[in-house]
Amino acid sequence: MHVRAINPNTTESMTAAIGRAARAAASAGTTVTAVGPVMGPASIESHYDEALAVPGLLTEIGRGEADGVDGYVLACFGDPGLDAARELASGPVVGIAEAAMHVATLLGRHFSIVTTLPRTIGRAEELAERYGFRTACAGIHAVDIPVLELDLPGSDARRETTAECRRALAADGSDVIVLGCAGMADFCAEVSAELGVPVIDGVAAATRLVESLVALGLSTSRRGEYAKPPVKPYAGALADFGLGTGVR
Amino acid sequence: MHVRAINPNTTESMTAAIGRAARAAASAGTTVTAVGPVMGPASIESHYDEALAVPGLLTEIGRGEADGVDGYVLACFGDPGLDAARELASGPVVGIAEAAMHVATLLGRHFSIVTTLPRTIGRAEELAERYGFRTACAGIHAVDIPVLELDLPGSDARRETTAECRRALAADGSDVIVLGCAGMADFCAEVSAELGVPVIDGVAAATRLVESLVALGLSTSRRGEYAKPPVKPYAGALADFGLGTGVR
Amino acid sequence: MHVRAINPNTTESMTAAIGRAARAAASAGTTVTAVGPVMGPASIESHYDEALAVPGLLTEIGRGEADGVDGYVLACFGDPGLDAARELASGPVVGIAEAAMHVATLLGRHFSIVTTLPRTIGRAEELAERYGFRTACAGIHAVDIPVLELDLPGSDARRETTAECRRALAADGSDVIVLGCAGMADFCAEVSAELGVPVIDGVAAATRLVESLVALGLSTSRRGEYAKPPVKPYAGALADFGLGTGVR
Amino acid sequence: MHVRAINPNTTESMTAAIGRAARAAASAGTTVTAVGPVMGPASIESHYDEALAVPGLLTEIGRGEADGVDGYVLACFGDPGLDAARELASGPVVGIAEAAMHVATLLGRHFSIVTTLPRTIGRAEELAERYGFRTACAGIHAVDIPVLELDLPGSDARRETTAECRRALAADGSDVIVLGCAGMADFCAEVSAELGVPVIDGVAAATRLVESLVALGLSTSRRGEYAKPPVKPYAGALADFGLGTGVR
Amino acid sequence: MHVRAINPNTTESMTAAIGRAARAAASAGTTVTAVGPVMGPASIESHYDEALAVPGLLTEIGRGEADGVDGYVLACFGDPGLDAARELASGPVVGIAEAAMHVATLLGRHFSIVTTLPRTIGRAEELAERYGFRTACAGIHAVDIPVLELDLPGSDARRETTAECRRALAADGSDVIVLGCAGMADFCAEVSAELGVPVIDGVAAATRLVESLVALGLSTSRRGEYAKPPVKPYAGALADFGLGTGVR
Amino acid sequence: MHVRAINPNTTESMTAAIGRAARAAASAGTTVTAVGPVMGPASIESHYDEALAVPGLLTEIGRGEADGVDGYVLACFGDPGLDAARELASGPVVGIAEAAMHVATLLGRHFSIVTTLPRTIGRAEELAERYGFRTACAGIHAVDIPVLELDLPGSDARRETTAECRRALAADGSDVIVLGCAGMADFCAEVSAELGVPVIDGVAAATRLVESLVALGLSTSRRGEYAKPPVKPYAGALADFGLGTGVR
Repeated sequence: MHVRAINPNTTESMTAAIGRAARAAASAGTTVTAVGPVMGPASIESHYDEALAVPGLLTEIGRGEADGVDGYVLACFGDPGLDAARELASGPVVGIAEAAMHVATLLGRHFSIVTTLPRTIGRAEELAERYGFRTACAGIHAVDIPVLELDLPGSDARRETTAECRRALAADGSDVIVLGCAGMADFCAEVSAELGVPVIDGVAAATRLVESLVALGLSTSRRGEYAKPPVKPYAGALADFGLGTGVR
Repeated sequence: MHVRAINPNTTESMTAAIGRAARAAASAGTTVTAVGPVMGPASIESHYDEALAVPGLLTEIGRGEADGVDGYVLACFGDPGLDAARELASGPVVGIAEAAMHVATLLGRHFSIVTTLPRTIGRAEELAERYGFRTACAGIHAVDIPVLELDLPGSDARRETTAECRRALAADGSDVIVLGCAGMADFCAEVSAELGVPVIDGVAAATRLVESLVALGLSTSRRGEYAKPPVKPYAGALADFGLGTGVR
Repeated sequence: MHVRAINPNTTESMTAAIGRAARAAASAGTTVTAVGPVMGPASIESHYDEALAVPGLLTEIGRGEADGVDGYVLACFGDPGLDAARELASGPVVGIAEAAMHVATLLGRHFSIVTTLPRTIGRAEELAERYGFRTACAGIHAVDIPVLELDLPGSDARRETTAECRRALAADGSDVIVLGCAGMADFCAEVSAELGVPVIDGVAAATRLVESLVALGLSTSRRGEYAKPPVKPYAGALADFGLGTGVR
Repeated sequence: MHVRAINPNTTESMTAAIGRAARAAASAGTTVTAVGPVMGPASIESHYDEALAVPGLLTEIGRGEADGVDGYVLACFGDPGLDAARELASGPVVGIAEAAMHVATLLGRHFSIVTTLPRTIGRAEELAERYGFRTACAGIHAVDIPVLELDLPGSDARRETTAECRRALAADGSDVIVLGCAGMADFCAEVSAELGVPVIDGVAAATRLVESLVALGLSTSRRGEYAKPPVKPYAGALADFGLGTGVR
Repeated sequence: MHVRAINPNTTESMTAAIGRAARAAASAGTTVTAVGPVMGPASIESHYDEALAVPGLLTEIGRGEADGVDGYVLACFGDPGLDAARELASGPVVGIAEAAMHVATLLGRHFSIVTTLPRTIGRAEELAERYGFRTACAGIHAVDIPVLELDLPGSDARRETTAECRRALAADGSDVIVLGCAGMADFCAEVSAELGVPVIDGVAAATRLVESLVALGLSTSRRGEYAKPPVKPYAGALADFGLGTGVR
Repeated sequence: MHVRAINPNTTESMTAAIGRAARAAASAGTTVTAVGPVMGPASIESHYDEALAVPGLLTEIGRGEADGVDGYVLACFGDPGLDAARELASGPVVGIAEAAMHVATLLGRHFSIVTTLPRTIGRAEELAERYGFRTACAGIHAVDIPVLELDLPGSDARRETTAECRRALAADGSDVIVLGCAGMADFCAEVSAELGVPVIDGVAAATRLVESLVALGLSTSRRGEYAKPPVKPYAGALADFGLGTGVR
């Protein structure tokens, strides 16, 4: 089985880290590849970045199809382009916010999300609502550290994330933590050990869910909404996404 | 006051029709311009199309800012890129699905949406939920006519849309109709006359709402989520969307 | 176009202030008149006051119909008698709570309401739920100043309202403020300037929404619930509201 | 214990029928009185009627207080003026829609409401939502018979109501019926016998709930929202409702 | 009329206290009996305890049927086995959480629940949601005292419960208190007197509700879900619950 | 890794079928064992059966702990005793209704549940609500075949289930099917092949989810609600579940 984790931003060190997290979570027999897009933002910290990450991400789905990939992980906590990716891919596609929230609800009554920048809280809240977890999600908190500074040498990110998780559990009365950024995957074990509660990294969770769907022979329904998108002309810099291109 | 209606697809006849509908709805003193993007799909009929319409749409926001536009209408019923456009634009931005649903709830207990393709029903449902109108929206129906065939000579679209609206009122017990596509703006008066209920065209509704916000001195909040997006490097075909470009 | 703002209480200085706010918000070509009822309470600060403001308010709708009014603003934040007014009026009717909440959701993720007396919080919460904005409304707060003391010479109301709005933004994580009383219309610009977020006055918002509906040729649906009320005998002090009277 | 059922319309035969239903439901030791108002509509079939029934209803609360009444039943399925009545009355006040829905949820998974006129369905739906029973209420249906024709000699109302209840059970997959009009109290036993499911009459249900609250020493909370309304000047035909009058 | 209160745990002093509370609440003509099960846990403080209390509780329903009991109170705030008991009993069955929450919503806008152990908060929240009271329930709080220590000589439970109720009213902005444990029935009057708000004991509330249902001739619907359970073989220690046994 | 599927009813052929389905779904390196309880009902077709299946099921959790089981599947679509099992087990526990619904939402917009007996629809609805899938679950349907007749020789169950699934897709506008009974696991591939949509068997889904949780080092949170249940005396036939017994 070949699972591909797509980092929707162009920062290669983050693609590498996502690959490590996905590989650590995968089953023995699964091939995991991690890729980043050829176009788009260096990190995703706004609706603007998120929207503009999608073309590059869809190109990677197109490449994955050519490579015979069996299923995809979208490795950004905003789950950008998830519906479009599902239309395009033959195999299942799972976003890391989606995956982390689903897994969290199997482990406790309420989860708290701890993410990077405060301005992304609204999107996380919208996703929790969209996926059915408004009640299960007891709070969303931000450490106020930019995505690309999470792993800088000498960064306090790990300590501050742990502290914020501790505050979240108390304030929200929650029993599970969801880490709200692919860049926090490395903190997972440590935060869990320190706080004594399950801490979910979406990359690991999504990798396992994609594997499970593929193993069960399941993929996105083609009845109605998620059927393959109609082929049609595309103009300008995005012309390759239309009819007869290599994208699909 | 200068209101700009952005058609997120590249079909010029549709841009022209949107301009007509917006101008017909605007106040005497308002300048309305209608534009279409330089890149992206010829019509929006899938999540894939919708996602790929956003870069072109954001470019038009960037141009509008240079042109001193006061407020924007996003003229596609999926409200693509609405959050990103709000971050980028100085003035208010209103989507036509959003506008139509808001206006509908001021006129009756329940509205029904009648749209083009069945595969877009899921997105309309998601938007109704997102905007708070799950209860107000009593049903979503499709006439199963592609967007670009709505105004073909000899098309039955007008008659079929009227018939579907009639069925929707009966099946849903609703009292207001929302037309679920910018391409249906021309049908509005006729359907309303025939069925005897308010029928909302989102382009007209959004034009008036944007005008109202501008007149009241209101625009998107810059506190937190919708602050201007952080400037950063962008790669590849989308490099112009990043740091130091003309896009913003 | 003739828009009439109805103050549902009998305090003339408040009617005058509502008229000023509505006129300031209206388009150049719109005639705005503001009226107060001949019967009912001097201010609305309880469910009891609110219920007893409705007959006077409906009388004003009846008079407005005779005057050829095109649309109505109900200028009390409890939106009293809104459904009844819609049945009675030929043109659209918009309440100021409704208007303010709708407008707020076009400008940010979450709004906070800041109102006068704590005992009115429950009604505001009920309206937010009724209109679909339970999620969008992040909190409701009261400054604990009676309605008629808001504009007393030497009152601290303006300063205290600003302070409460600041607290609300922080406590609720909101990005937009809705002022929860027609008597706070004058504070709007100042609070917004001080806090740097959009602050919505319902009178202004409702005036613009009514204008928009009239301009779009839209009014309350007559299909089912909001059809004109059946004529019938009324007894006692309210006999004029029944069959054959001048009220309708 | 003295429980008073208030018919909010002025039709005396209906007041008498409500009194019979309430007395049949009450405990042996309870005195039940039924009254109708001195002002207002002959029947309640619109939002307009409902709003204008409230002053007369509140006058009856005032009289009840003078008479030492222990608790009140509001005997119209729209629960008009319920919040205002709660502020005014010393003892508990229960509406018949509220009562019927609460009782229905103790007896099955889903109830269907069968009411008189289709135009009242919206209000019933709003109440179901307000009381927390959106999920429990599986459908609302109307027999399309005016309230005052329910008990006309030779009327088909009983038969048609039974037939509509049967259709509602099948269409909604419900297991309990709520009769949506005080005028249907007489049909209750017959419909239940014929359909083999619990059928709830709100007058009976509310009478028992009020009795229960009084017996338990419980009444409306005075903390905050439902404290006694502030005394103040009232103008015009409603002047008696204000300061120093006999109403309270 | 014979109402039976079933204490689902095996602690006899608690059964006696429940009997006292139920008898104090019942009408003059009602016989109240209180029983405890022959098997199961000494107190219910976990999901595990709750699940294992159900067989004993159902045995008591079986005995009650043999005794000609007219209706049942399930006297544990988790409402264990309520659906199963409804299938089995001929008369109505009401849980004390259910009863307390229903009654609370007739008396104010929002209730707070104050219960014993923090670990039971999740169950109370689930019940509030299940019964339709997610909005009405403003908060759930725990005093952190085990059920069986509530009435120990020298216990601070009464004082601590009162203090927690006071905190809950302030933190939640609520106006009614629900005591979240059958063992707190004795505190009810004192807490109410001290705090000046309605305080609901579920045992009293449920006793009155069961009485009301019986008096109205109402019981659980047998249409569909709550029909008598199909008879079938049962194995092992629970064999008596199956075909041909004395349980039903 | 050792995953144990617990059939909560005592029918051995069903235990065997569940074991086959779980083993077919599991990874190569996973040991799957399937067990049935020593006490309880032969099949689960009512709330009564469901409640009485829990003691036997918990005994199996106790045995599983002794056997060093890593995680558990609860193989009945009512997810009986799930919360209690989570308290008791060291490793993760997943119910098949829960698992099927979670997986379904990763594959489409709306799922329909097709189950056995109509009387179980209410429980399925309650679970969909509890897990956050009220919107995602578009309908619940029953073929009206008892659980133990699903695999009788000559049974039409497979054909009728397929037909009902087809009807459900059309009536609900759904794109994914969830089979609502562990006894339908065998139908899964065939129904999917015939209807061309994903069809989820909960046993397979839950097996994969449990495997995933174990592989990720995740188990039920012990913070608060799901901590190990307090040890205490148990009486009667259930005495072994209490203090010092072999159950835990």
